[in-house]
Amino acid sequence: MRAVRVTGYHQPLEMGEVDKPTADGPHDVVVRIGGAGVCRTDLHILEEQWAEKSQVELPYTIGHENAGWVDAIGSAVTNVAVGDKVILHPLVTCGLCRACRAGDDVHCENSKFPGIDTNGGYAEYLLTSARSCVRIDDALEPADVAALADAGLTAYHAAAKAALRLRAGDKCVVIGAGGLGHIGIQVMHAISPAELIVVDRNPDAVKLALSIGADHAVVGDGSQVDQVMELTGGKGAEVVIDFVGEGGSTKEGIAMTRQGGDYLIVGYGENIDVPTIDLVSTEVNIIGNLVGSYNDLVELMALAAQGKVTLHTAKYPLDDFQKAIDDLDNGRVRGRAILIP
Amino acid sequence: MRAVRVTGYHQPLEMGEVDKPTADGPHDVVVRIGGAGVCRTDLHILEEQWAEKSQVELPYTIGHENAGWVDAIGSAVTNVAVGDKVILHPLVTCGLCRACRAGDDVHCENSKFPGIDTNGGYAEYLLTSARSCVRIDDALEPADVAALADAGLTAYHAAAKAALRLRAGDKCVVIGAGGLGHIGIQVMHAISPAELIVVDRNPDAVKLALSIGADHAVVGDGSQVDQVMELTGGKGAEVVIDFVGEGGSTKEGIAMTRQGGDYLIVGYGENIDVPTIDLVSTEVNIIGNLVGSYNDLVELMALAAQGKVTLHTAKYPLDDFQKAIDDLDNGRVRGRAILIP
Amino acid sequence: MRAVRVTGYHQPLEMGEVDKPTADGPHDVVVRIGGAGVCRTDLHILEEQWAEKSQVELPYTIGHENAGWVDAIGSAVTNVAVGDKVILHPLVTCGLCRACRAGDDVHCENSKFPGIDTNGGYAEYLLTSARSCVRIDDALEPADVAALADAGLTAYHAAAKAALRLRAGDKCVVIGAGGLGHIGIQVMHAISPAELIVVDRNPDAVKLALSIGADHAVVGDGSQVDQVMELTGGKGAEVVIDFVGEGGSTKEGIAMTRQGGDYLIVGYGENIDVPTIDLVSTEVNIIGNLVGSYNDLVELMALAAQGKVTLHTAKYPLDDFQKAIDDLDNGRVRGRAILIP
Amino acid sequence: MRAVRVTGYHQPLEMGEVDKPTADGPHDVVVRIGGAGVCRTDLHILEEQWAEKSQVELPYTIGHENAGWVDAIGSAVTNVAVGDKVILHPLVTCGLCRACRAGDDVHCENSKFPGIDTNGGYAEYLLTSARSCVRIDDALEPADVAALADAGLTAYHAAAKAALRLRAGDKCVVIGAGGLGHIGIQVMHAISPAELIVVDRNPDAVKLALSIGADHAVVGDGSQVDQVMELTGGKGAEVVIDFVGEGGSTKEGIAMTRQGGDYLIVGYGENIDVPTIDLVSTEVNIIGNLVGSYNDLVELMALAAQGKVTLHTAKYPLDDFQKAIDDLDNGRVRGRAILIP
Repeated sequence: MRAVRVTGYHQPLEMGEVDKPTADGPHDVVVRIGGAGVCRTDLHILEEQWAEKSQVELPYTIGHENAGWVDAIGSAVTNVAVGDKVILHPLVTCGLCRACRAGDDVHCENSKFPGIDTNGGYAEYLLTSARSCVRIDDALEPADVAALADAGLTAYHAAAKAALRLRAGDKCVVIGAGGLGHIGIQVMHAISPAELIVVDRNPDAVKLALSIGADHAVVGDGSQVDQVMELTGGKGAEVVIDFVGEGGSTKEGIAMTRQGGDYLIVGYGENIDVPTIDLVSTEVNIIGNLVGSYNDLVELMALAAQGKVTLHTAKYPLDDFQKAIDDLDNGRVRGRAILIP
Repeated sequence: MRAVRVTGYHQPLEMGEVDKPTADGPHDVVVRIGGAGVCRTDLHILEEQWAEKSQVELPYTIGHENAGWVDAIGSAVTNVAVGDKVILHPLVTCGLCRACRAGDDVHCENSKFPGIDTNGGYAEYLLTSARSCVRIDDALEPADVAALADAGLTAYHAAAKAALRLRAGDKCVVIGAGGLGHIGIQVMHAISPAELIVVDRNPDAVKLALSIGADHAVVGDGSQVDQVMELTGGKGAEVVIDFVGEGGSTKEGIAMTRQGGDYLIVGYGENIDVPTIDLVSTEVNIIGNLVGSYNDLVELMALAAQGKVTLHTAKYPLDDFQKAIDDLDNGRVRGRAILIP
Repeated sequence: MRAVRVTGYHQPLEMGEVDKPTADGPHDVVVRIGGAGVCRTDLHILEEQWAEKSQVELPYTIGHENAGWVDAIGSAVTNVAVGDKVILHPLVTCGLCRACRAGDDVHCENSKFPGIDTNGGYAEYLLTSARSCVRIDDALEPADVAALADAGLTAYHAAAKAALRLRAGDKCVVIGAGGLGHIGIQVMHAISPAELIVVDRNPDAVKLALSIGADHAVVGDGSQVDQVMELTGGKGAEVVIDFVGEGGSTKEGIAMTRQGGDYLIVGYGENIDVPTIDLVSTEVNIIGNLVGSYNDLVELMALAAQGKVTLHTAKYPLDDFQKAIDDLDNGRVRGRAILIP
Repeated sequence: MRAVRVTGYHQPLEMGEVDKPTADGPHDVVVRIGGAGVCRTDLHILEEQWAEKSQVELPYTIGHENAGWVDAIGSAVTNVAVGDKVILHPLVTCGLCRACRAGDDVHCENSKFPGIDTNGGYAEYLLTSARSCVRIDDALEPADVAALADAGLTAYHAAAKAALRLRAGDKCVVIGAGGLGHIGIQVMHAISPAELIVVDRNPDAVKLALSIGADHAVVGDGSQVDQVMELTGGKGAEVVIDFVGEGGSTKEGIAMTRQGGDYLIVGYGENIDVPTIDLVSTEVNIIGNLVGSYNDLVELMALAAQGKVTLHTAKYPLDDFQKAIDDLDNGRVRGRAILIP
C-alpha cells in the first residue's frame, strides 16, 4: 500500500510502497484510512524535535489523527466489526495498568502512539488496537472528524475538565481561537453555562469565535489582561484555558485568573515562570493538559453527532501530502488539513 | 491594656499601653488572649515586606495566631458566649460575598487580617468577629493550640485538599518537616491512607517525622529526587506537598510528582520556573495553597481534641516578646514560640 | 400596611392591616414586595399540613416566594442598599453554623422560613435578612422572577446537582413538565450537554418541553418506562429527576435509572418502596433534594439575566389573592400566579 | 482435577473430577487455587435464589472468592506471570465497554462471574482473565486474603465511597459488625478521620469492633437510634453504612442519618420504604453499593499488605467442603471459612 514516510530528519517526507498491515494479534484492528489530519506536530517531527522522546526508528509512516473504516480485526475484538466507521484514539493502550484501569488512558504505562513512535495514518491502512476504536455516528464521515482524534480531543479534555467547576454566572477565558481553541470554544459552549471570553491577537479569529459560542471577544493588542479584568469586574475569570502557551500567554493567563481559579495550560512553548508567593496568596492552580481519554473521545463524538462541534477542513488527496504540509507551514490552511487516501 | 506594637519598620517591637477593645459592633467579639504564636511572618513584617500589601497604619499591634477566652460579645453574636475557650480563624470575613457564601472564607472580598492589617494578638485582648471564633474542646488549652490558628491551619488545608485524591497504596511526599510540615505530616497520617515520604535537609527533622506518622524519611542531600523515585517505583508520588518553596524545592518537588499528580505549593520564596511542555506532557498540576477556611479550623480542632495533632511549644511571658522573636530569628525555638499575657 | 394572613386553618385567607416591619436588627432588611408567588404549598398550609412542622403562631402573613426592592436596612448590612432590586432566598439563615459555613444554607441549624414559620410576602413589605438578598440584573423585574425564589430554586438545585455527573452523550430523564419541571428543563438545557427526555402525562406539557430544550418527549400513558428504555438503548438514563413523587412515579423513575445512575427525588407524596437487593445489585442512588443555597439562587439569576430561564406568570393584584388561590386550586393558572401589591 | 459442584438445587454440593482448565484465549489465566472463601451467597445458590438471575447451567463449580498462584497464561497476558501470587477480582470483565473504560468494572456490560454464572473456585484450578488478576504482596498468603476478593471488596468499596465526604470531626455509623462490617470498620479506620460508631445486636461483636478501630459501640437493643442520636448531638451521622439491610435496619439507618447525609446500603433482604417527603425535607441520600472495582481491590490489598486490614479465617481442606458449608449455615464460623485444595 502507499504510505507517506519520514525517511530522515530535516528533509521532506516521502511517499513509498509498504506492506499492508494485518490483524495478527488478538486485539489488532486494521483500519482503512478515511482521513488523516495534518498537524503542526508533524512539522516538528521533521525538524527532529520528537526524535529523542519517541525513539522512533526511521523510516516510518507519519500521521496521528486518523479515522476510517475497520478493515480487519483480531480474534479477541468484540467492540467493532469489519466495515464499521471509526475514529481512532491516538494512543494504543495496554488496558491493564492502574491508569488504564482507572479510565485514564493517557497515562498508560505501556502505550504506543501511531504516527509518533510507530506507523501512523498518512497511508491507505493503519494498524491499531480494539481499545483505540470509537465507532462514530452514521451521519459523520471519517474525513470530517479525523482532526478531532488528537487536536479536538485535547481541546475537549481541557474544556471538560474545566467545566466541572464552572457554574452559571462564572467566566471562562479561552486564550487562542486557532485550531484547538476553535474546538474548545464549541465544546465549552455546549457543556457549560459559563460566559466565554475569547482572546486572540487575530481580530478575524475573535470575530469567528463570537459566531461559534463566545460571549465576549478580546483582541490581544497588549491590553488583553486589562480587558479581561474589566469584563470580570476586576476579579479575573474562574477558569482560563491557554491554547497558546507562548509569546507571553502564560503570564497573561495567570494574571487573568481569579483567586482560587484554575489556569489550564494546553499550548506549549515558553516556560511558566511565576513567584511562589503569587500562587500561594491567590491559590491559583496551574493545571496541565494532555490529550483526552477514550471516553472523552466518545463524548466528543456525541457532540459532533449532535452538530455541536464542527470543524472546517481543507481536504487533500494523499498524493498531495507535500502541498498540505506546505500550506500548513505557510499559514494557508483555514481549519484543518486532511489527507484522503 | 498591654500590647506589643510595630512602631516603625527595621526597628524593634515596642510594648505599650493601649485601650482595651470593646464589642461595639453587632458581631464583635473581644477575646482575652491565652496564647499568641510567634511566626516568621512577624519577622518579615518588621522587615517591611508586608507594608505595601497590608497598607497597615503604624503603630499597630502585631500577632496573627491567637487563642483565648471570650471576654465580651456584640449584640448579634450567638455562636459563642463570654467565657468560652476559643481559637481564632486568622481572618475576619464578611459572610456575605460569594466566596464566604461558598465556605471559602479565605477569598472573602472584604476581610481583615488581625496582626497583619489591623491590631493583632500580642496583647492582653483582641477584637475579632463572631465569624472567626471556633470553640475548642474542654481538654485543650489556648496556649497549646494557638499556633494551629495560622501555621497549623495552612498545613491542614493543604493536607486535606491533597487527601481528597489519595487512595490506599498511593504515595505522598512532604517536603519540609519544620513547623508547617510537622503538622502536615500528623494531619495526613490521621486523614489519609497514603504512604508518607518526608524530605528534609535536617536528619533530625526526618527522624522526628518518622515518629509522628511518616513511613519513609529522605534526607535532602542532593539525591532526594532519586530517592523518592526509588521509593515510588520510578514513577513519582501521586501528591507532593512543598512546605519549603525555596532553595530549589519547587523544581525538585515537580520532578518527584507522578504523571497526572498534584504538586501543592505552600511555602514560598523562589519562582516556579517550568517548561510548559513538561506540564502538558505529564499533566502535573501545580496547586496553590493559602490558609484554610473556618470549617477547616473546626476540623483541625477535632483532630487536636482527638490527640491526633499535637504541637511542641516554647512558652514566653508576653513581656519577653523580644526574647521570643530573637530565639525564632536565631533558630533556637523547637516547635512554636507562644506569647502568654 | 396590607397583608394577607392565615387566621385559622381550613378557612380562607384574610386581608388585614398590620404594622410595616422595621429594620431594627443589624442584618435586617425590609423589602417592598414587587411580586409574591402563589404556591401549592400555600394551599397545603391552609389545610393544616404544615402546622405541626412549622409551629407557626396564627395569625401570620403567608407567602414564601418573594422579590422586590430594598426599603430599609439594618446597621450591619453591606451587600444591598436601599432601592436595590432583589430576589429573596426563602430561608433566613444564621451564617454561623457548620452548614452555613459550608455554603449549605438549606441545612442551617437556626433558620427561619418567612411565609411558613414567620411572616411572609403576601404583603406590601417583608422583613428578611441581608443574607437572604440576591441583587438581580437591571433587566429583570421582581414580579417576573419571584417564583424562581422557591420553586425555581428547587428545580435549579436538583438540576445543578445532577449536571455534575452528566457528560456529553449521557441521557437525563425529567419526570414532570409542570411548574418545577418546566424550570428544571430550561436549567438542564443551559448547563449540561445531556440529552433530555421529558416524561409527563399531559401531551401538551411534553410538547411545550420540546420547545424549551427537551430532546425527546414521552407521554406517560403507561408505557413510559418502556419508552425511556428504548430511548436509552435498554440501559436507562444516567440521571432521572422526578418532579412528581407520586402516582407511581418513584417506582417508574427508579426503573428508568441506569446501573450506577442517580434518581433524584424532588416532588413528594408517595413512599419510595424498593427492595434493597435492587439498589445493591444496580448501585442506583436515590438522592434527596430540597431548595437550593444562596449561591444557587445567584446562579439561577445569572441564567435568568441571560434569558436562559424564563417563566410564564399570571399576575394578580394583591387584593385579588383569593382569585389567585382559587385559580391555582382549580388548575386555571398557566405557569405561576404572582401577587403584586 | 477435583471440583465441588452444584449438580442440582436443594441438594448437597458434590465433589467431582473435571478437566483442568487451559489458557486458550489470549487473555486467559489459569490460577491454582490457594484459598476459596465460603460465602452465604453459596448457600443462597443452593437454595435456587440465584438460578434465574445467573442462568447458570448445571452442573458447575461453585466459589466466587478466590486467590492462588498463576498456573498458565494466554498469549496476550502481560500483567502477571506463571507463579505469581494473585487474588482474583470476582468479575471477568470485557475491558471495552464504557463502564470498563471508566474503571467501573462492576457495571461491565459483558461480564462473567465465576462461581455464580460460570465455573468458580471450589476446585484445584480456576479459569479467569488477565483483567481479574491482582498480584499480592510477598508477605500475604492466598488462603489468608481470599475472602477479601468479594466480601472484603464490597466492604472496601462502600467504605471508600463514604470516606470521600467524611472530614475530621464527622461521625460514621456502621450497622453490622459481622463479616463485611468487620472489614468495613478496619478500612474506614485506616482511610478516614471520622469517628466510627458501630451498631450490632451482638454485644461481643461490638466489643470486638472497638478493638479494631471503632470509637463507639452501640448494642442494638431497640434503643440504637436514640443512642446514635445522643452520640451525634441529636443530629445523626454524616454517613451510615448498613451492612445488614434487613430486620428493620434500613428504617433505623435512615433515621440515624444527618440532614444532607448519606445512607449506604450494602446488606440486603428487606425493602427500603420511606416517605418521599422525608428524603426531600432532609436531603438524605440512599446510596446503593455492589462489589468494588479492580482498582478498589488493588487498594484493599495495599491495606492488607500494610497490616491495616486482617481477617480471621477458619481453614478447611477442600474435601471438607460440606463441613465448611454446614458450619457457616449453623453460625459456627468465626470470621470466614476458607477451602484449601
